[in-house]
Amino acid sequence: MDNAPAHAADEWSPRPAYWLDDVPTAYGHGPAVVLLDQTRLPQEEVRLVCSDVPTLVDAVRRLVVRGAPVLGIVGAYGVALAAARGDDVKAAVQDIAQARPTAVNLGWGARRAFAAWEASGGDALAALREARVIHTEDAQASAAMAANGAEYAGALVADRPLRVLTHCNTGALVSGGEGTALAVVRELHRAGRLGQLWVDETRPLLQGARLTAYEAAQTGMPYAVLSDNAAGSLFAAGEVDLVVVGADRIAADGATANKVGTYPLAVLARHHGVPFVVVAPMSTVDLDTPDGDGIVVEQRDGGEVTELSGMPLTPPGSPAYNPAFDVTPPALITAIVTESGVLSPVSTIAIARMSAGHDPVMRR
Amino acid sequence: MDNAPAHAADEWSPRPAYWLDDVPTAYGHGPAVVLLDQTRLPQEEVRLVCSDVPTLVDAVRRLVVRGAPVLGIVGAYGVALAAARGDDVKAAVQDIAQARPTAVNLGWGARRAFAAWEASGGDALAALREARVIHTEDAQASAAMAANGAEYAGALVADRPLRVLTHCNTGALVSGGEGTALAVVRELHRAGRLGQLWVDETRPLLQGARLTAYEAAQTGMPYAVLSDNAAGSLFAAGEVDLVVVGADRIAADGATANKVGTYPLAVLARHHGVPFVVVAPMSTVDLDTPDGDGIVVEQRDGGEVTELSGMPLTPPGSPAYNPAFDVTPPALITAIVTESGVLSPVSTIAIARMSAGHDPVMRR
Repeated sequence: MDNAPAHAADEWSPRPAYWLDDVPTAYGHGPAVVLLDQTRLPQEEVRLVCSDVPTLVDAVRRLVVRGAPVLGIVGAYGVALAAARGDDVKAAVQDIAQARPTAVNLGWGARRAFAAWEASGGDALAALREARVIHTEDAQASAAMAANGAEYAGALVADRPLRVLTHCNTGALVSGGEGTALAVVRELHRAGRLGQLWVDETRPLLQGARLTAYEAAQTGMPYAVLSDNAAGSLFAAGEVDLVVVGADRIAADGATANKVGTYPLAVLARHHGVPFVVVAPMSTVDLDTPDGDGIVVEQRDGGEVTELSGMPLTPPGSPAYNPAFDVTPPALITAIVTESGVLSPVSTIAIARMSAGHDPVMRR
Repeated sequence: MDNAPAHAADEWSPRPAYWLDDVPTAYGHGPAVVLLDQTRLPQEEVRLVCSDVPTLVDAVRRLVVRGAPVLGIVGAYGVALAAARGDDVKAAVQDIAQARPTAVNLGWGARRAFAAWEASGGDALAALREARVIHTEDAQASAAMAANGAEYAGALVADRPLRVLTHCNTGALVSGGEGTALAVVRELHRAGRLGQLWVDETRPLLQGARLTAYEAAQTGMPYAVLSDNAAGSLFAAGEVDLVVVGADRIAADGATANKVGTYPLAVLARHHGVPFVVVAPMSTVDLDTPDGDGIVVEQRDGGEVTELSGMPLTPPGSPAYNPAFDVTPPALITAIVTESGVLSPVSTIAIARMSAGHDPVMRR
């Protein structure tokens, strides 16, 4: 442990999504899923009360809440909400799962809550209990990923604090706990092993500049924000020891869909011989998708590129190309860290074994 | 020629910098250098009248005018302005050359105008004449680069229109003519050989989104803007036939300093076997800098990353890393196109020969 007065920072949690039993809603009093509106961070901390599934689905689409693990929790709470309201629960699962096409966790969480509801013979409390189990499991998975990842990363560079580059936001805002990739960084920081966190701003939606910088500031990490373009300069200057990123979907062969801009970092990391590590819960692994070619990449509105907060950045009417994610092939991934252990090298057989509950190829 | 009704588009010129003999100024009537304020494009076309050198130097620093070739013209006009005003011409050369440390053309233009002034025994008109010669030469160089580059690029993919990715802005806004890399694209478009122009938005200052998109729209090119992060997805999808970029400084071995984000594109292009071509006038070659290690990269204010038009993008007080340029090593550059011809492969000896006025290794 380092000796910084970091106790409050150590324990900081933004609570990105939680359940309330009885709040005033548009329908009178009733249950609701409460979301911290990430589109308004870091300038404002505003919470959105979703008292029906369409509001929740719309919030997911607008990225009020985003990030693979928390979307699993939100998907499950959404089903619990439909059940508590007496809505069509099966239709809710479908609507929630399709809110965003690439994020596999959304449907995964929704289906788990649905299965519990169905098995109970339609008890709304059973769906809510399952959602809470998912929430708790995610916090535990996050802690395990942080421990596994920090141990693995710490062994890569033993003699000095690590300089870590990350992309997008993968911390406590996307998790029932402290997140995925950023949880690893936070664990390194707790252990006094973090030299510098380099934060890609992550255009177009600036989740790095807005959210990762916010989490880094809240938790007292040494950090700096950079335009995504400047990552190459850091690699060339030898200023990066490790790249850590999250994942929105991991195919059976380890191909990883993550925020657009991840793949170029993986290519740069390989070019410079820097380890490139994916950190994600097992729920992100989709064995039904054999490889990267099978991953549907969400194309988002061009306005995310041509405007910022309503301010035009381009000439009026400019066409834009705006994929939300890209896919990094397994050959460029040094390791995948999950709550179960560390896979390195990444292979279809290793992923299948870990998914089946076998020991990972390498457990640290 | 394609048969689009593109005559106006064909001839479009924004006139980024020009001289006026007699305008109302802060000092009464007098000479001035007029700059199209690129910081306000594409929303407004505003011209800044610089009637003294400090105003011009400040405008260069604020990027009212930017881009290697036009900075050579502006540097020369600046010296002509000092001479016409009877200011200390030698001090003006120094101030202008140091306005931005990486852009070699600024000092090159200023010194050429100064040499003409000195040789004439201090005749202000001699400095102005030399500035106008530089302006005209640049337009001619631009036309030659466009022809050389379009012929070279056209031969790379002979059977269909090319899909070209570019970074930053390298067109008529940075030139006495139609520019460097974007002039090549415009020439391909004139010849009906341009399938698609992919425009990197080019954070932090968005010269691609603002300026290249503006030029593409004005000249009727098929184009789309993308976040710099999305370039990797285009390569992976096989949607890029060619990368063309400009240069702010080319060292004796061919190492090229250009807008930050250029080097990652070169690494991606190499990873995908896509040609990566630098287009720049010979005045950009700096034989006094042996290689990339000798190139001083300007570090700009972190506020360019943490704010956009005064709107905060990060938590208050976020540290930022903001190099203006990066350096691409010659091994990643497929060809350098100048007004004299096409160098491919890029080597110290080939650059030295071309600089000495010998035939380039490959003239197309």
